Amino acid sequence: MYINAASYYLPETTIPNEYYTRLAGLTDEWIFKRSGIRMRTKANPGENTNTMSIEAVKPAVEKLPYPINEVDLIVGATYTPYDTIGTLAHAVQGYFKIPLARAVSVSSACSSFINAVEIVEGYFATNKSKKALVVATEHNSAYSNDEDTQSGHLWGDGAGAIFLSKERISEEDIEILDVSTTGLAHIGRGLEGVYLRPNHGGLRMPFGKDIFVQASKFMMHEIENILKRNHISLEEIAYIIPHQANSRIISHIAGSLGLQEGKMIVNMEETGNTGCASTVIAFSQNWDIYRKGELIIITVFGGGYSSGAMLMKK
Amino acid sequence: MYINAASYYLPETTIPNEYYTRLAGLTDEWIFKRSGIRMRTKANPGENTNTMSIEAVKPAVEKLPYPINEVDLIVGATYTPYDTIGTLAHAVQGYFKIPLARAVSVSSACSSFINAVEIVEGYFATNKSKKALVVATEHNSAYSNDEDTQSGHLWGDGAGAIFLSKERISEEDIEILDVSTTGLAHIGRGLEGVYLRPNHGGLRMPFGKDIFVQASKFMMHEIENILKRNHISLEEIAYIIPHQANSRIISHIAGSLGLQEGKMIVNMEETGNTGCASTVIAFSQNWDIYRKGELIIITVFGGGYSSGAMLMKK
Repeated sequence: MYINAASYYLPETTIPNEYYTRLAGLTDEWIFKRSGIRMRTKANPGENTNTMSIEAVKPAVEKLPYPINEVDLIVGATYTPYDTIGTLAHAVQGYFKIPLARAVSVSSACSSFINAVEIVEGYFATNKSKKALVVATEHNSAYSNDEDTQSGHLWGDGAGAIFLSKERISEEDIEILDVSTTGLAHIGRGLEGVYLRPNHGGLRMPFGKDIFVQASKFMMHEIENILKRNHISLEEIAYIIPHQANSRIISHIAGSLGLQEGKMIVNMEETGNTGCASTVIAFSQNWDIYRKGELIIITVFGGGYSSGAMLMKK
Repeated sequence: MYINAASYYLPETTIPNEYYTRLAGLTDEWIFKRSGIRMRTKANPGENTNTMSIEAVKPAVEKLPYPINEVDLIVGATYTPYDTIGTLAHAVQGYFKIPLARAVSVSSACSSFINAVEIVEGYFATNKSKKALVVATEHNSAYSNDEDTQSGHLWGDGAGAIFLSKERISEEDIEILDVSTTGLAHIGRGLEGVYLRPNHGGLRMPFGKDIFVQASKFMMHEIENILKRNHISLEEIAYIIPHQANSRIISHIAGSLGLQEGKMIVNMEETGNTGCASTVIAFSQNWDIYRKGELIIITVFGGGYSSGAMLMKK
């Protein structure tokens, strides 16, 4: 399967760490040292998961080598829904008038972007879809609490989108060589490490330390497993895009793998943790740096817990 | 693909129409005439989408011809989540300790049960899964408003579960001959006919008439299409299980198709509209009446909009 185009949307408004110093006494130095975040994107009033999804798709439509109405499957991904009935997949279908495309939105928390791609893989395998659109969007600020000193300062808002086809469409396509996910609810603090309960406290992360440990371990496992399955060595990988939750987790993985400086793509200093949208935003932001033949890995870890990885070749 | 076992959970508490007479002046006669509902199931305090999912799975585990830890894929379906991060799929994985099974929850509103089965079909096609568990659960009362005279009295709570395998496991299995979904967000009042916006009004149905028209039309389309694709005539079908939203929609479809009395399975008089769980609950409640060789169709319509159907053979 092939990625034909990618794009993203980040709200214009950013909130600097100083906001949390005034609000909750958290200093810029304290936040940055513990998370790698200097500022986070914040949706404007009137924006939501559905509107940001539409905005994320628009730039890719310009670059798409076929009309958008040829898309026959739309998979949305979010754990911060605006509407759980008229989901982001439906909002995109309605806005771009994509007739009769299958539409569904999914959540496996911060790993959902990879879950969505794996679901597309299944539809390609049954030949029920030939061209698909995956949109991953988070509106964390709609559910988080700025005064929650455990995690209120970590979250950003944003969206990313990729168009996929079963067969190669253009020489610019990026091939997906492998994609895989793992459910880990039976591990550690799986169901309570981080949660978003719309009627019971919103978005909270009471067990950040367990998440740190499991995220480091399983994002690394996913990298190692996908390399092994595809008989590829780490040295052959041009870029790794990990879930953008915490720069210390990313440094820990880079250190454990002995990864060369510059191979890890990181954007969260300026966006915060944009949930399941984080890797597709980072992947999309860097589209122009990938050179023909280069291999790229996305690795993710999500609350619940769950993990996943995707191996691509430009 | 094959269904190896099915089960369901309905909360003990039921709310009769008289409750809405006292609360909002809606009489039993008025409600029943317009919806076919006499009472609706209501989750008890402490119950939620995740707990009801676990309860729905338990009875099937007793009948399952293999240990539950052989399941390698769990797909949850709901538009009324308790937790969008630790989703119902994760709750089930955690409770039954199903190691490393892929876990994801989906929403395409009231059609999501069929979307979930279609996603399993894709995983079977890629051989990433051989045994899967689909759980569809709604906790409508967590998001609806009893005083909303448009739709507050329509909703019920409940959950249904099926275990699926790629290959036949037992002579008792029900074969899935075909499953298909359709996204319809570009049709009519797609994105606003019925919605669930956790932060903006909860569960509401401002355009019930448009839903009536589209649900009748597209549930019928789905039946006609699945019959045509499989070269089967309506007379060969033993039972049709439509989405349990409104008995007038169901009567309208039965009348238009010229369907024999007794072929439509209806349970909503005593449950209300249990959303995407409604068809799997009804399917499961009637498991013992299906005779060898009989054909069964489930047809669904959901907000957003979306539709789908599944053809099965005992």
